[in-house]
Amino acid sequence: MSGPRILALSGGVGGAKLARGLSHCIAPDDLAVIVNTGDDFEHLGLYISPDIDSVVYQLAGVNDAARGWGRADETWHFMAALGALGEPDWFRLGDRDLAMHIARTQHLAAGRSLSETTAILARRLGILTCIAPMSDGRIRTKITTTEGELDFQRYFVERQCVPAVRSFHYSGAERSWPSEALTNALHSSRLEAVILCPSNPFISIDPILAVPGVREALSSLPAPIIAVSPIVGGAALKGPLGKMLAELGREVSPVSIAKHYSDLLDGIVLDEGDRRHGPAIAKLGCAVRFAPAIMTGGETQVALARETLELAASFCPAMASNG
Amino acid sequence: MSGPRILALSGGVGGAKLARGLSHCIAPDDLAVIVNTGDDFEHLGLYISPDIDSVVYQLAGVNDAARGWGRADETWHFMAALGALGEPDWFRLGDRDLAMHIARTQHLAAGRSLSETTAILARRLGILTCIAPMSDGRIRTKITTTEGELDFQRYFVERQCVPAVRSFHYSGAERSWPSEALTNALHSSRLEAVILCPSNPFISIDPILAVPGVREALSSLPAPIIAVSPIVGGAALKGPLGKMLAELGREVSPVSIAKHYSDLLDGIVLDEGDRRHGPAIAKLGCAVRFAPAIMTGGETQVALARETLELAASFCPAMASNG
Repeated sequence: MSGPRILALSGGVGGAKLARGLSHCIAPDDLAVIVNTGDDFEHLGLYISPDIDSVVYQLAGVNDAARGWGRADETWHFMAALGALGEPDWFRLGDRDLAMHIARTQHLAAGRSLSETTAILARRLGILTCIAPMSDGRIRTKITTTEGELDFQRYFVERQCVPAVRSFHYSGAERSWPSEALTNALHSSRLEAVILCPSNPFISIDPILAVPGVREALSSLPAPIIAVSPIVGGAALKGPLGKMLAELGREVSPVSIAKHYSDLLDGIVLDEGDRRHGPAIAKLGCAVRFAPAIMTGGETQVALARETLELAASFCPAMASNG
Repeated sequence: MSGPRILALSGGVGGAKLARGLSHCIAPDDLAVIVNTGDDFEHLGLYISPDIDSVVYQLAGVNDAARGWGRADETWHFMAALGALGEPDWFRLGDRDLAMHIARTQHLAAGRSLSETTAILARRLGILTCIAPMSDGRIRTKITTTEGELDFQRYFVERQCVPAVRSFHYSGAERSWPSEALTNALHSSRLEAVILCPSNPFISIDPILAVPGVREALSSLPAPIIAVSPIVGGAALKGPLGKMLAELGREVSPVSIAKHYSDLLDGIVLDEGDRRHGPAIAKLGCAVRFAPAIMTGGETQVALARETLELAASFCPAMASNG
């Protein structure tokens, strides 16, 4: 064993769904899911890591599919009592979800890294696949908007993504380093593909690429880098991506996604309804595969994961026979 | 205004019930309830103050009467999720209750004292009566048992009071000081009575008396000191007091309570069923009043509070007309 075969880079909800699909197609020791921590923040004395939670809850099968974040069968009694005490309740923490934040905060306070902590808690929920933060350093996404620079959660939760974005900054990235799991994956002698999950490029994937050395390592990899478009039918499947692209003066289409990653990208999976964008992306020198890209349930997650792996395999003949 | 008329010293459940009764008989500015903090501990990164919580929940009317601790209509989803994560779940924290611990921990982390924090949170639950810790210092009850010295919560919750007790120690008391509210009450020019609530002497009232200067100040007060017996009919109403008295070689009767406080006590309220103990207590130079001492609900709490105040008033003729 010298590292995983597949490295997936993921943000929250959309990325987590594909990561779950991948975890059904790939043996646990062959897959590493590296997760954005630019959204992490401290709130009520707790260390909250929203994207890691989304991936962990998805792979453990305890996520709330309808709400899109947090745990299934959640209750909100803590939150109601907190509000009645006059404490800040703008960030919603479910009763079951709270256990994760308390446990994580305790492990970190005991001196464990976020990587170690994530590994322990994921394993306790029965997850065998490696889920790791992009870094054990402190990197925080800051969003410059028409209202000035905002911390990610202030922009996303409190301001509900209303201010128009101008640019993104990953504070602390220059002083950070890749997590051990990310380093292992980037140097894996078995690496057959890197998958950029259908997450927001600006606030989910770019923070990972901003970790020192990651973009350079990806550029020099022999393994193909394959994205799955988070834009389907001219809109983001979830979250503020469509609004952000428009505010930045870019087309709200998968072409913008391919262009955004163009220096890294070997291939991209688009939704079947987006065939008209194929030629523009092919002109960028990027292979395109079309597949149903809206993951409404477990079967569609696995199907999209298979399509993505097949596009990767087209660059790596040895992979198809192992995949 | 120069301090309260009535100072009540209280532990958890039994004391909290009488404190609630008193709060119905006495104007908010005339009553100070000073609460034991020897049971306080840190758990899961949270500062937990069980006796303050019991008093606050009682006076706010949100306590669980049947269970005897915590909040009414409580749910346990956090606890179940925490156990599933393999984290310590020997101390039960309800979903609603958790809001209090998180809020308190946040206020303390922001640099507020436990007194300030308690005042803020009690006020937010609509409580006008002063509820304050015995001290803003760190005093922890340690119990020497046949199994060695145990922290209070280990003895009480984890070991379920099974080890036989030998002695009690209030660690840190010598380096502590009374809270501002306790100092104000002890020096109140209006003070008409001190009430030792029906709490466990060893683990609820003695820690308060161990705060430097408190026992001396009480000894020299002109106001009468009145206890309400936590022993009724040869047994403790709740908790390990009966077992403790037996293990210490003392009679499980209100006489032991009167003897325990004898250097301080002017009067004691016993249950009507304990009339046979009257003569032994009178011999100690302590006045006795008999009243229904089992507080099964709000009306019985108020009735016992009135009986207690009447015994106090018998030492202080001016009080009856104001009471």
